Amino acid sequence: MSLMTGRDYRRSLVERRPLTVYLGGERLEQPFDHPIIRASVNSIALTYELAEDPKYREAMTAVSALTGKTINRFCHLHQSPEDLYKKIGMQRLLGQKCGTCFQRCVGMDAFNAIFSTTFEMDVKHGTDYHARFIEYMKLVEDRDYVVDGCMTDAKTDRGKRPHELTDPDGYVRVFERRPDGIVVCGAKMHQTGALNSHHAMVMPTMAMDAQDKDYAICFAVESDAPGIVYIYGRQSCDTRLLEDPDGANMDAGSPGFGGQECMVIFNNVFVPNAWIFMDGEWDFTGMLVERFSGYHRQSYACKTGVGDVAIGAAALIAQYNGVDKASHIKDKIVEMIHLNETIWSSSVACSWLGTKTKAGNYLIDLLLANVCKQNVTRFPYEIARLLQDIAGGIMVTMPSAADMSNPDTRPYLEKYLKGVDGVSAIDRMKLLRLIENLTMGRSAVGYLTESMHGAGSPQAQRIMISRQSDVEKKKSYAKNLARIED
Amino acid sequence: MSLMTGRDYRRSLVERRPLTVYLGGERLEQPFDHPIIRASVNSIALTYELAEDPKYREAMTAVSALTGKTINRFCHLHQSPEDLYKKIGMQRLLGQKCGTCFQRCVGMDAFNAIFSTTFEMDVKHGTDYHARFIEYMKLVEDRDYVVDGCMTDAKTDRGKRPHELTDPDGYVRVFERRPDGIVVCGAKMHQTGALNSHHAMVMPTMAMDAQDKDYAICFAVESDAPGIVYIYGRQSCDTRLLEDPDGANMDAGSPGFGGQECMVIFNNVFVPNAWIFMDGEWDFTGMLVERFSGYHRQSYACKTGVGDVAIGAAALIAQYNGVDKASHIKDKIVEMIHLNETIWSSSVACSWLGTKTKAGNYLIDLLLANVCKQNVTRFPYEIARLLQDIAGGIMVTMPSAADMSNPDTRPYLEKYLKGVDGVSAIDRMKLLRLIENLTMGRSAVGYLTESMHGAGSPQAQRIMISRQSDVEKKKSYAKNLARIED
Amino acid sequence: MSLMTGRDYRRSLVERRPLTVYLGGERLEQPFDHPIIRASVNSIALTYELAEDPKYREAMTAVSALTGKTINRFCHLHQSPEDLYKKIGMQRLLGQKCGTCFQRCVGMDAFNAIFSTTFEMDVKHGTDYHARFIEYMKLVEDRDYVVDGCMTDAKTDRGKRPHELTDPDGYVRVFERRPDGIVVCGAKMHQTGALNSHHAMVMPTMAMDAQDKDYAICFAVESDAPGIVYIYGRQSCDTRLLEDPDGANMDAGSPGFGGQECMVIFNNVFVPNAWIFMDGEWDFTGMLVERFSGYHRQSYACKTGVGDVAIGAAALIAQYNGVDKASHIKDKIVEMIHLNETIWSSSVACSWLGTKTKAGNYLIDLLLANVCKQNVTRFPYEIARLLQDIAGGIMVTMPSAADMSNPDTRPYLEKYLKGVDGVSAIDRMKLLRLIENLTMGRSAVGYLTESMHGAGSPQAQRIMISRQSDVEKKKSYAKNLARIED
Amino acid sequence: MSLMTGRDYRRSLVERRPLTVYLGGERLEQPFDHPIIRASVNSIALTYELAEDPKYREAMTAVSALTGKTINRFCHLHQSPEDLYKKIGMQRLLGQKCGTCFQRCVGMDAFNAIFSTTFEMDVKHGTDYHARFIEYMKLVEDRDYVVDGCMTDAKTDRGKRPHELTDPDGYVRVFERRPDGIVVCGAKMHQTGALNSHHAMVMPTMAMDAQDKDYAICFAVESDAPGIVYIYGRQSCDTRLLEDPDGANMDAGSPGFGGQECMVIFNNVFVPNAWIFMDGEWDFTGMLVERFSGYHRQSYACKTGVGDVAIGAAALIAQYNGVDKASHIKDKIVEMIHLNETIWSSSVACSWLGTKTKAGNYLIDLLLANVCKQNVTRFPYEIARLLQDIAGGIMVTMPSAADMSNPDTRPYLEKYLKGVDGVSAIDRMKLLRLIENLTMGRSAVGYLTESMHGAGSPQAQRIMISRQSDVEKKKSYAKNLARIED
Repeated sequence: MSLMTGRDYRRSLVERRPLTVYLGGERLEQPFDHPIIRASVNSIALTYELAEDPKYREAMTAVSALTGKTINRFCHLHQSPEDLYKKIGMQRLLGQKCGTCFQRCVGMDAFNAIFSTTFEMDVKHGTDYHARFIEYMKLVEDRDYVVDGCMTDAKTDRGKRPHELTDPDGYVRVFERRPDGIVVCGAKMHQTGALNSHHAMVMPTMAMDAQDKDYAICFAVESDAPGIVYIYGRQSCDTRLLEDPDGANMDAGSPGFGGQECMVIFNNVFVPNAWIFMDGEWDFTGMLVERFSGYHRQSYACKTGVGDVAIGAAALIAQYNGVDKASHIKDKIVEMIHLNETIWSSSVACSWLGTKTKAGNYLIDLLLANVCKQNVTRFPYEIARLLQDIAGGIMVTMPSAADMSNPDTRPYLEKYLKGVDGVSAIDRMKLLRLIENLTMGRSAVGYLTESMHGAGSPQAQRIMISRQSDVEKKKSYAKNLARIED
Repeated sequence: MSLMTGRDYRRSLVERRPLTVYLGGERLEQPFDHPIIRASVNSIALTYELAEDPKYREAMTAVSALTGKTINRFCHLHQSPEDLYKKIGMQRLLGQKCGTCFQRCVGMDAFNAIFSTTFEMDVKHGTDYHARFIEYMKLVEDRDYVVDGCMTDAKTDRGKRPHELTDPDGYVRVFERRPDGIVVCGAKMHQTGALNSHHAMVMPTMAMDAQDKDYAICFAVESDAPGIVYIYGRQSCDTRLLEDPDGANMDAGSPGFGGQECMVIFNNVFVPNAWIFMDGEWDFTGMLVERFSGYHRQSYACKTGVGDVAIGAAALIAQYNGVDKASHIKDKIVEMIHLNETIWSSSVACSWLGTKTKAGNYLIDLLLANVCKQNVTRFPYEIARLLQDIAGGIMVTMPSAADMSNPDTRPYLEKYLKGVDGVSAIDRMKLLRLIENLTMGRSAVGYLTESMHGAGSPQAQRIMISRQSDVEKKKSYAKNLARIED
Repeated sequence: MSLMTGRDYRRSLVERRPLTVYLGGERLEQPFDHPIIRASVNSIALTYELAEDPKYREAMTAVSALTGKTINRFCHLHQSPEDLYKKIGMQRLLGQKCGTCFQRCVGMDAFNAIFSTTFEMDVKHGTDYHARFIEYMKLVEDRDYVVDGCMTDAKTDRGKRPHELTDPDGYVRVFERRPDGIVVCGAKMHQTGALNSHHAMVMPTMAMDAQDKDYAICFAVESDAPGIVYIYGRQSCDTRLLEDPDGANMDAGSPGFGGQECMVIFNNVFVPNAWIFMDGEWDFTGMLVERFSGYHRQSYACKTGVGDVAIGAAALIAQYNGVDKASHIKDKIVEMIHLNETIWSSSVACSWLGTKTKAGNYLIDLLLANVCKQNVTRFPYEIARLLQDIAGGIMVTMPSAADMSNPDTRPYLEKYLKGVDGVSAIDRMKLLRLIENLTMGRSAVGYLTESMHGAGSPQAQRIMISRQSDVEKKKSYAKNLARIED
Repeated sequence: MSLMTGRDYRRSLVERRPLTVYLGGERLEQPFDHPIIRASVNSIALTYELAEDPKYREAMTAVSALTGKTINRFCHLHQSPEDLYKKIGMQRLLGQKCGTCFQRCVGMDAFNAIFSTTFEMDVKHGTDYHARFIEYMKLVEDRDYVVDGCMTDAKTDRGKRPHELTDPDGYVRVFERRPDGIVVCGAKMHQTGALNSHHAMVMPTMAMDAQDKDYAICFAVESDAPGIVYIYGRQSCDTRLLEDPDGANMDAGSPGFGGQECMVIFNNVFVPNAWIFMDGEWDFTGMLVERFSGYHRQSYACKTGVGDVAIGAAALIAQYNGVDKASHIKDKIVEMIHLNETIWSSSVACSWLGTKTKAGNYLIDLLLANVCKQNVTRFPYEIARLLQDIAGGIMVTMPSAADMSNPDTRPYLEKYLKGVDGVSAIDRMKLLRLIENLTMGRSAVGYLTESMHGAGSPQAQRIMISRQSDVEKKKSYAKNLARIED
């Protein structure tokens, strides 16, 4: 098979064992009929639909290094710097198309990190994880699966190591070892696209030591495996999607698309041996986390696609408001572009400077991938601020879509909320709702807060930037110029 | 009377002629029972309740210059720099107590601007607006009224002057002149606390010229005057207040308080002569706007009170998360305080440097008031960004309050969402919802977007900063030092 | 006497015992004839000359609280918030007039800090320092002395406490105690205006504990006391003043004025008992340092005067270059003004919020004084960057004044370096040299680096901001709104 | 020949017709013996010396596309994205080695811009400039010449077009056309490395129209051609190099190296036809300027090499001062690295996204090259500010090198200016002088002001960023998401 259609993908979600899903205090029988979830499925479905579209096929697919078949690029093990660059091209494209998080990157980034880490683990420890993982990847590629990369644990007290916690389940751990596999428990937090994924790929959340051996595990599991419980995360303005469940609701801002995060609880879930890729090799947890994070920090290039939406929205509302020729407006739009392209630059640079791992796939330049993400923790906030500046306060004081539907109030809105001649109130309102969505609503979750914390909070990147930079060498340049002798 | 209690105030709202109010597509029969509106009434009621509280009475009241009676400071004509300083002290206090917009400042700022402008208008034009206005103010002081200061018009095309618009109602205007008064039409946008006010005080929105004479009007009108229609503005996450109308709803973040903005439409509303304070004197529109804006830019000192909430929330969540000793966390909190106090500095400075107007009340220093507001268009966004940094991503991925009420999911939340030992999941969730509210939800409307656009968008302040600064004198300093002769 | 003229002041400098002064590797016999030193004397002389000028007398003088006489404000013990405000008004004025450091603030700030600290010390320890200090102040006021406030020690290894250093002289200390006084040794670094002062007032550089008792000393000493050695600090471009010692030299940028810093070495200098104001009371070192630093951080308001010069220079060069109508240029000038006035705001605010000490003089608000200085460590750099942006690269690539004097090259410079019609090359060059001076040259030492480190480096303010801010109270606001119970 | 040694290069400078050079008001007979000029020659000589060094040969050389010979990369026409990337690698390396401007980039960037522009000009106009230019390039490659790329004109009034100026020589122009060539007059400003170059390559400074035809010229000329006059630009602290002409002078900060800018005046200079590459084709001035600027904006990658020196100096002085373990110091160094690598990212990205021109050489991505330079107008200033923060104020208050040589003062300096145990005063002083040099002195000219204005001032990049970004497409993304129909 190897390439599913969007329709196949949507069908594959419902044709599973019933999931245990809670949202808004209810257990959902048919989660994928829920308007909030549906919007998030639409985003991920785009990764299939664009791959079907001749216009984007080139961007969305790759040739498998394992089988030679054409596969979705999200299942691909990167074979060159160009592959790394094509990855971010695909991500920016999707950001432009859905304006939010399309959820499929974490799996891709996990594949590539585990691929090279298992190789090096096997060399040192004589294990056979890499071969197992190749078999697993063949399955993923062939079935065109979405895999949720699960890293962040509940932690509770961040000041303690896993084994020091009062409740040992603060980090996902091996609860029991059996001949045919392991039984795990714990929970992974803010799991992007968890429900919309076919599998979950669990990884440790940080470098560990010997005392935390039982937490040093990496494995895959089917999303519908017995014992997994999903509790849906709520987002700013999420219920606007329920106000008008046919999807035409203007107040949703970007009614077609959404992101998704869940708490994923593992209640003694069984994992067969074939899908275990690390079990106790704590000395490789650091490498796995560093590589996964590195790939995933590169992935934040997707936010430049959302940034493109923000810039377009700014330019359009300026035009609707009749101020597009004002010099300060034009200058703010240039600044938005400049910041967006600065982010893009780091993601491009860390891709082209990628290097071959011992296992044969390509790893991004770790320093620049961290620089990329660090900029992502700053610039989208400034872009959003400038967007609000250009939009005007009406974005947050405007009546609702329902007032536009009410024949008593509609004439007032049409009269007083229109823009320049030729721009209707309804178009102006739609655009303002999109801007609200991007800067405060559901999409702001993805564009702002996720930009801050996804793939590691800012301080995590600073530690890596410090570690990846050869400061001793820089000291020697200064000494040479100042003629200081050692 | 002169000082109403909070209870009086609430009663006064319902004991009016029925208002025409629309919210969410419905006409509300009992608007003040609506949970969204009730939260906004709570905020404004605080301005009465704290004045009753011996602890805050000093801060909340003043002695009337017109009658010698003790009045609410919101009704006061400032008599000294100290009064101007006490004004912002009161505003910061209220910001700390409600964490959002308490809506009563616009009226106070309008009073003070109209007081001095009518005086100077009368001197030039021989009119008697000032005497009228004094009578009006005695009423306001005595009844302890909330008055909505209405400035911003619909405009539609911002590139055109009022008389150039296709639809002449783009700005509020005199539709008809009668012996006993005028009939007005048009609409004022994003009117803060409009429903919660006893009167509306309408002012022109910008400096006008002779061609826009019919738009050069200033008048008061009762909020329940026939012909006024209110359409309630919707805010990010507003409907969370409906999820649990008893007010205990954790997901509302700050369930007790809210802000309010409405579109206010004037459908041929009659205004009696006694309440008209400008009618056609276009040459004073600039002065009125400049002074009102100046006072109102000073008023943004209130955001430092909200900033105090944000800083407190940051320090508390760091403690709950077990990272309060980390140096980067401590440094970010210092930065938040520094930015907040920088805003405060400008509001304090423009108060103490206030000067007496010809009419006898005090006007803030216009340059520094504009500097204050300009900083408000920037620093709350950075404070909010740092708050999100410290909070962690869980703020946007956490399940809902309803999931906490559901006995099936509650144990998971209690287990995995708790903080350090001794901090329950529910407290941590409450705090995270407050942070969400401040940075993305209802309170973000007030703390961020309103900080950007209220009292004029950033560019408006830049124009004033340029105009208020004596650049020629600064050039002379440079010439002197460089020994350039004229 | 009580007010010296500028001429008196200049004479008073030379009519002292010969000082031991080194500059550029030479011992100077007549230091005050040296062009570099002369420029620095000119700046400080302005504090006398403007006090003579009827236009500025009001700003420059005060009525002594000790004697009722009119004294120079630099000798004044602040008696009210208004005094604190007048202090910064005087400082901004001087910054505008000399465009650099006028050196006399450190003494004034020391007087006020020591006055209140000695009072409280006496209350606790039963000492009589305060009475001694009042006598001393009467002398200073009467003679209109400049006093160098000496705080920063050599330290060498910043990671160690005084008593832990290999060389005990890293901090100034009591070397010997005698019945009539003490003998001190050590060195104070970057002493502003040291040579140009009549006295040195030595204070401890940080809070100390019992182990560092011998370092807990505060005393005054005549600048020409035996045993003091001055080594002049060199500044960027200092020798340009030597290129043309008559002072007309264009390349000096601002040929008339300069700042001054020296290393001041105390080689067993004797201090009589009457002039000792702390000797071993280590428990008051913290208070003294905190108050002195607080006053001195307020004093950085002077940089807004230099900022005014920078803004004027920007506006003027834009005009000379023919780009003053460009919107981006106008916007940059607004930004410069905004930043400058933001600094000004904090200095104004910390003045008006000053409070009475137990000794009776007024202390600035410590939190806002630290906020003021923290902004000074940032905004002048940005103002200077914008000034360089507006000036154009010619500022650093232009030929020298000597090339303008050379008849062979002069015609080329006149032809190609002129600005818009009517602006000669020489005027444009003078202005560009002033800009160079402010952003890279002698005045940049004062406007930039001193703004960073004077009165404590940025981190020192951050510690104080953290300490002065009641974070627990802020937490309670957040708890109240989120309805978290204790 | 094709690769000169450093020694060859130095000899080639003096073995020319005598140049007319003025510096500091004097005409220099032996300019290359002058210590200021010698330092600037050292920088450019590095481009030869490193090419001789086996360790750097790979980085410094390329294979000519015209002849197949190994040539210095500075003479190379880029044949691939990798070539563009190697270009910036070479530039960063040189920045690390000399810490200032090595002057040879402008010629390289001119070569590549003229190569492709002449090709397209010939296609349109049927001229033969491209063939001429290839011949010229063969000569340059073979002789390993340094060529000064001359773009910026004197302009005088920036608000006017060339033909509108009172003095027609404000822009370089054709004064006379002769059968064998043209005679030109005018002046080019701030010409980097002009004296140190073998040729000057003159280009128009902006897009012109038909009225400015005589200004639409591009040609090469020998640096020693009759009629050329050089007036040396003065830099901050330039004369420190004269204080100790043997080059050991500590106060020079970085005594070995320097930059160079000159005014270059063309007094009726003859240019033979073979070296004319544009004469009147005003419709290609825009393309030439845009491409040259694009390449040259990429070239500002060199500042990351200087940034490496700055970071190294910061880390080293922190260690000398005993504060290298302080968390705020470590954090500031991370920030410096982050900013430096962000610049690097844009230069890397615009290189790898380079595309083939019609003429066959490669052009960088114009959008990202402009983004790169825009960041260069900001981040080095912040890096320098942080460096001053870490260094401490002693950098600007420290005595001179001569005081260190004076036996009277040396002991004081050794005692009080030492750092932590093991770090001598002299090493600490050397390092502090380097920091002064980088942030205020000669190297600050290159690291700061040149970063601002070289290759076009900030506004020039903003115009290009606006022009290179497809905002209409971005609007369509916003419309799609908001469901606005056209």
